[in-house]
Amino acid sequence: MPTECEKKLRFAMIGLGAIGGYYGGLLAQSGREVHFLARSNFEAVRANGLRVDTPSGDFRLQRVNVYHRAEDMPRCDVVLVALKATDNGALPAILSHVLREGGTTVLIQNGLGQEERLPENALRGSVYAGLGFICASKAAPNHVIHSDYGALRLAAYREAPGSLRLHGGAEGLAREFEAAGVEIERESDFLSARWKKLVWNIPFNGLSAALQADTAELTRCSSTRDLAEALMLEVIAAARAEGCTMPDTYARQMIDATLSMKPYFPSMYHDFVAGRELELDAMYAVPIERARAGQRPMIRVETLAQELTFLCAHRKPRKC
Amino acid sequence: MPTECEKKLRFAMIGLGAIGGYYGGLLAQSGREVHFLARSNFEAVRANGLRVDTPSGDFRLQRVNVYHRAEDMPRCDVVLVALKATDNGALPAILSHVLREGGTTVLIQNGLGQEERLPENALRGSVYAGLGFICASKAAPNHVIHSDYGALRLAAYREAPGSLRLHGGAEGLAREFEAAGVEIERESDFLSARWKKLVWNIPFNGLSAALQADTAELTRCSSTRDLAEALMLEVIAAARAEGCTMPDTYARQMIDATLSMKPYFPSMYHDFVAGRELELDAMYAVPIERARAGQRPMIRVETLAQELTFLCAHRKPRKC
Repeated sequence: MPTECEKKLRFAMIGLGAIGGYYGGLLAQSGREVHFLARSNFEAVRANGLRVDTPSGDFRLQRVNVYHRAEDMPRCDVVLVALKATDNGALPAILSHVLREGGTTVLIQNGLGQEERLPENALRGSVYAGLGFICASKAAPNHVIHSDYGALRLAAYREAPGSLRLHGGAEGLAREFEAAGVEIERESDFLSARWKKLVWNIPFNGLSAALQADTAELTRCSSTRDLAEALMLEVIAAARAEGCTMPDTYARQMIDATLSMKPYFPSMYHDFVAGRELELDAMYAVPIERARAGQRPMIRVETLAQELTFLCAHRKPRKC
Repeated sequence: MPTECEKKLRFAMIGLGAIGGYYGGLLAQSGREVHFLARSNFEAVRANGLRVDTPSGDFRLQRVNVYHRAEDMPRCDVVLVALKATDNGALPAILSHVLREGGTTVLIQNGLGQEERLPENALRGSVYAGLGFICASKAAPNHVIHSDYGALRLAAYREAPGSLRLHGGAEGLAREFEAAGVEIERESDFLSARWKKLVWNIPFNGLSAALQADTAELTRCSSTRDLAEALMLEVIAAARAEGCTMPDTYARQMIDATLSMKPYFPSMYHDFVAGRELELDAMYAVPIERARAGQRPMIRVETLAQELTFLCAHRKPRKC
């Protein structure tokens, strides 16, 4: 049962894509106070609420605290960021309006380097990485479809215990999510958490966009399954060069997990098809640069990233 | 001026694609006796002749000695093979009908390993590799467009001087082509000739099919230009492991040559778009295997080949 203090916690969800809609939606559905910052789907959500289809029970939020401008939002204790990493340039200004002094920020984003890149004065308290191990996408501007998995892995980038209203730091944060029905995985090492997610993201996001294929097609074909595993092994080697503990067998484990999950188009596929900017910087350029710095260049990953950069600049119908 | 003996030389051109049409067309246009084996365009060429547009002077052959079955062809002194390497399984049977005892075979094909793979009894005399440094494609079944370059690089795989009616071996062969207006480059080392061609073919054939782009797009974008050069350096390293002399600067030279040529879609692009089989074996699998055997694995090339294998099996419209 929440204490008096915890009851008053106020959450902000920055971004109302599939990820923001799913995690923020569950928090709101459980009775927590959540304020959403939306862009393209602001009107749709304000007018019609938010619909989330999920195997654990579809739900609909009729009234959503949704905002189009950060200036209009109240200051919040926990700011969850579910923007694409490409939009992080706007984050310092948003946080200056939304994050209360000593509040907690959770960057629910893929890739590497986001926390390090944010200006120190933008982050006023504790900072966590949130890695969503989830298959979710949007069926309509105010309609999220959650198809598989769903755990959020939390790892502390920086903890400022004195200033937290989330008693217990990450543990308190985790309990808030769990009470709302979100499965939380606690990762003790921040760097490992980000790299581990990349082990899956680098092959499947990039290949899905470059080859226009879902995870089932990519893993059923032995060529791309082998390529995905080879890409993973490069990422694992680079992670180890940064001090992470990660066995090579993690690659095989991720391939097997992908083989057994429902066919899925990762977010980069959707971004590519919709003509949106791809998260090439956080998901490829930064890891590639750090792997090179660690003397473990990821040659296959570089090849894929170079192709993606080209494809991004030349999006057009494939002729066959 | 041809000697009495050379006048009687009889040529066969196996395959009437852009390459067979261009080189065979020039030989026939110069008055040489050329017998063409055609498949899909047999009727079109028999009915309407062969048209070749080329910067050095368009021409049209009203009557072409064109055949649909090798059995119907006369035995020839020089058999030029301009089939795709994927069709080489049919070559022993064809040669058994067309190549005269002690005659000369020229495999005008890309890739590696074709000569070695042909059964010994299929090749009855001298064997040359012919590497076409040429931009040519088909505008219609009986219409070849030659847009740029055009040299044929000849290298002896095996010379059987006693049995040759082409006096002077490769030199005599070269002079026949030159008299017909084909620029000939003499390459003393067979293996280097095949690998050198791969230095260009591996990046530009594969990337043009995988990324659906022409050479100008691929070289104007710095990502794919860098990738093409990196692919070339891998091929050069593998070639050197097989004893070829090839400096790294050859890669830069090929990039510069590509930058200055007219925008071009290599043959693999056309094969891909038309749903035809790609030359993945001769152009990728064999070189990749030999590079691994030589302890110089071509990691980027392997990545590209794995993608191509997937794309080939999943050809479909790209969604953006």
